[in-house]
Amino acid sequence: MRIIVIGGVAAGTSAAAKARRENPEAEIILLEKSRNISYAGCGLPYYISNLIEQRSSLISFTPEEFAQKYEVEVKTLHEVTAISPEDKVISYQNLTADKSYRQKYDSLVIATGAKPMMPPIPGSNLDRVLTLRTIQDGEKIKRLVGHESLNDIVIIGGGYIGLEMAEAFKELGKNVALVEMQDNVMPLVNQELAEKIEKHLQEKEIDLYTGEAVKEFVGQEQVAGVITDREREIEADLVLLAIGVRPETDLAAEAGVELGVRNAIRVDHRMATSIADIYACGDCAESINLISGKPTWVPLGSTANKQGRVAGANAAGGSASHFGILGTGITKVFDLTVGTTGIKEEQAEESGFEPLAVTVNVPNHAGYYPGFENFTLRGIFDQESGRIIGAEAVGRSGVSKRIDVLASAIYSELTADDLFQLDLAYAPPYSTPKDAVSILGMVADKKL
Amino acid sequence: MRIIVIGGVAAGTSAAAKARRENPEAEIILLEKSRNISYAGCGLPYYISNLIEQRSSLISFTPEEFAQKYEVEVKTLHEVTAISPEDKVISYQNLTADKSYRQKYDSLVIATGAKPMMPPIPGSNLDRVLTLRTIQDGEKIKRLVGHESLNDIVIIGGGYIGLEMAEAFKELGKNVALVEMQDNVMPLVNQELAEKIEKHLQEKEIDLYTGEAVKEFVGQEQVAGVITDREREIEADLVLLAIGVRPETDLAAEAGVELGVRNAIRVDHRMATSIADIYACGDCAESINLISGKPTWVPLGSTANKQGRVAGANAAGGSASHFGILGTGITKVFDLTVGTTGIKEEQAEESGFEPLAVTVNVPNHAGYYPGFENFTLRGIFDQESGRIIGAEAVGRSGVSKRIDVLASAIYSELTADDLFQLDLAYAPPYSTPKDAVSILGMVADKKL
Repeated sequence: MRIIVIGGVAAGTSAAAKARRENPEAEIILLEKSRNISYAGCGLPYYISNLIEQRSSLISFTPEEFAQKYEVEVKTLHEVTAISPEDKVISYQNLTADKSYRQKYDSLVIATGAKPMMPPIPGSNLDRVLTLRTIQDGEKIKRLVGHESLNDIVIIGGGYIGLEMAEAFKELGKNVALVEMQDNVMPLVNQELAEKIEKHLQEKEIDLYTGEAVKEFVGQEQVAGVITDREREIEADLVLLAIGVRPETDLAAEAGVELGVRNAIRVDHRMATSIADIYACGDCAESINLISGKPTWVPLGSTANKQGRVAGANAAGGSASHFGILGTGITKVFDLTVGTTGIKEEQAEESGFEPLAVTVNVPNHAGYYPGFENFTLRGIFDQESGRIIGAEAVGRSGVSKRIDVLASAIYSELTADDLFQLDLAYAPPYSTPKDAVSILGMVADKKL
Repeated sequence: MRIIVIGGVAAGTSAAAKARRENPEAEIILLEKSRNISYAGCGLPYYISNLIEQRSSLISFTPEEFAQKYEVEVKTLHEVTAISPEDKVISYQNLTADKSYRQKYDSLVIATGAKPMMPPIPGSNLDRVLTLRTIQDGEKIKRLVGHESLNDIVIIGGGYIGLEMAEAFKELGKNVALVEMQDNVMPLVNQELAEKIEKHLQEKEIDLYTGEAVKEFVGQEQVAGVITDREREIEADLVLLAIGVRPETDLAAEAGVELGVRNAIRVDHRMATSIADIYACGDCAESINLISGKPTWVPLGSTANKQGRVAGANAAGGSASHFGILGTGITKVFDLTVGTTGIKEEQAEESGFEPLAVTVNVPNHAGYYPGFENFTLRGIFDQESGRIIGAEAVGRSGVSKRIDVLASAIYSELTADDLFQLDLAYAPPYSTPKDAVSILGMVADKKL
């Protein structure tokens, strides 16, 4: 049995490793078009800011290490150019030697990931208008910002990567402007919470331009400035485009694999695609939203790992399922933590819920214990069932724990009263006798 | 309608406050035999160690503040001496004036708490053989250890209070010995985890004597030493007895209220006792273990708050329930956090489960992000259903979050596979793409 995995970052390596554990006999080939496999893209902002000193820290396995540990044939700098499902063959190219090959597979796992979106803005092709996705992208940015003469950085997009990179560039002493087309940064969270983030960004001296779109990048060969639709001109020695990613699914689509939401590959719980013996996982694949039951596409490393594991098990003849996601995410924005899980009010209404939002300011731990801070916690409840279906939080401390507890509660279909009932751990350094989660439940229960 | 609440710490004040919210018209009287109400006993170790400077920080409400905020008549230094359920009358005494009163009630809430156990050891009545429960206890210890001449402290008992006080005394530069009769400290956790705690205590220069019982306290008027059953003599300028507490239920028992486990007051989900219109809550009352379904007694502030709220609502004519507990607890032991939730293997077997224990060493967050540490996480699973029924953890970082996520998972009857499926928040400063909880689930799933 031969299993071929296309793509070697989070989902692909998870799939290959799990396939090996599932099937000690199978031949497993991992093809990756870049130079590296198994690297932590999420760590790149911290590598660029010098918080992480060694590039090697970001790499879990070199190709050689992975090949040895899992008895997988790893071919980096090899790009798959076509899949022929009829004869179960892939065509691929050695990018260093310009040679082409064909290989038969019994099971195929597509883990081609996502790539940064490029806006159709004049000047996008200027030098130093960059995106951040791969280690090579990270290396390039790190090298450039290492020069003291590079001072003015403009980030386009106020999502996870935009905000993490704002912090990274500021840590390096750069002038940082952030332009977000929508009215608020972090469109994933409610306006009230987003405004807290914006206030914090301003305290950290990020020049923030929300509700403002980029009209043009100007400069000679190299970018020199950004012009917005309000005719604002912002000087720029470097522009980071962080307006989002899209699934890299051209290869799959050309092979006739069915695409779904946002052109991500349609998969079932087994990560099986519309074509027999072809699986997909990670940022190129859909997920099911556990609350709405509908397909969704939220490209995150945590999901990629789980989906990869499931795809690998099934590709190797096993039986595994990935039930779905809540879109749980978290990010550090300077001294703040921003977390979100579950469904938003608008989506909830679309899915037939009657959402009720409850916002509370709650303690991270006992008020008398050093480091006490309140943080903002917002829950979305379904008025009919009393179930919690979404949550988000912003604060300096206490956010990460409560988002994960609430992700578990949403997964388990707990109600507001259940949140009060939960027997959470109390000691002064960690929480309050009525934990923040219980307080949210109590307040919601009263309103329901 | 007149509601009388006996006891004004965590459960009693919760009950009175909730009764007021439930019933704006009722007359509510809170009787407390000590001078203070509404104080955080859990904060006392940190007050003694001077981490918390102001005694007032530990007091949520003075009697006057509470009386005003909730329109409750608060009588401190008043002790209830008898309950006559037949005529629904209590007798109480003004401790400062030696005057007695009788008062009719419509609903009665007993929140008399617990008191430290005193071992039947010769010399227990010597000066400076102390316990820690009330603010007055804390004041006395703080005053004594403020003297530089008081150097040698022996703690009897290695549970939550014993360990927290070992840290507190060490912070003050004292010599600290800890004697634990059982083979390991923290009998609530597994031996393997307890040994990690013991190693840490030794690193912090606590003289640790486990598997050793105290035979005698020696000294003239004042304690001067401790003699163990191994004939070890340990010098002592002060001894702290921290061998546990017992429910303070003499008053209830004399009134004919049914007692249960460990002589705690038997209550139902509504916190109703065996006698009509008498409720009990907090450290004097039983709980239901959510896993075994059996009555249990685990005196903790978090449970006291919930039970108080439920008792108060029902006493005021409302309708509320406390489903039960998992015995979730957490404590800081110097640089370690120790957490536990759910059922132990032995209890699990008694309750008809086939327990499987799984221990994993798991990351607090991404390995390349500063502050990375592994911690030890142990789960107890039921082999038949695959459900997680217990968990415990020890480590420098990452414990508190996972114990609460697992407390939520146990409450929700999740299985090992569910732990893998949980969509927990990932970013490098907070977790790993496969969170510690998911790793535990994966490893357990394989063994199951």
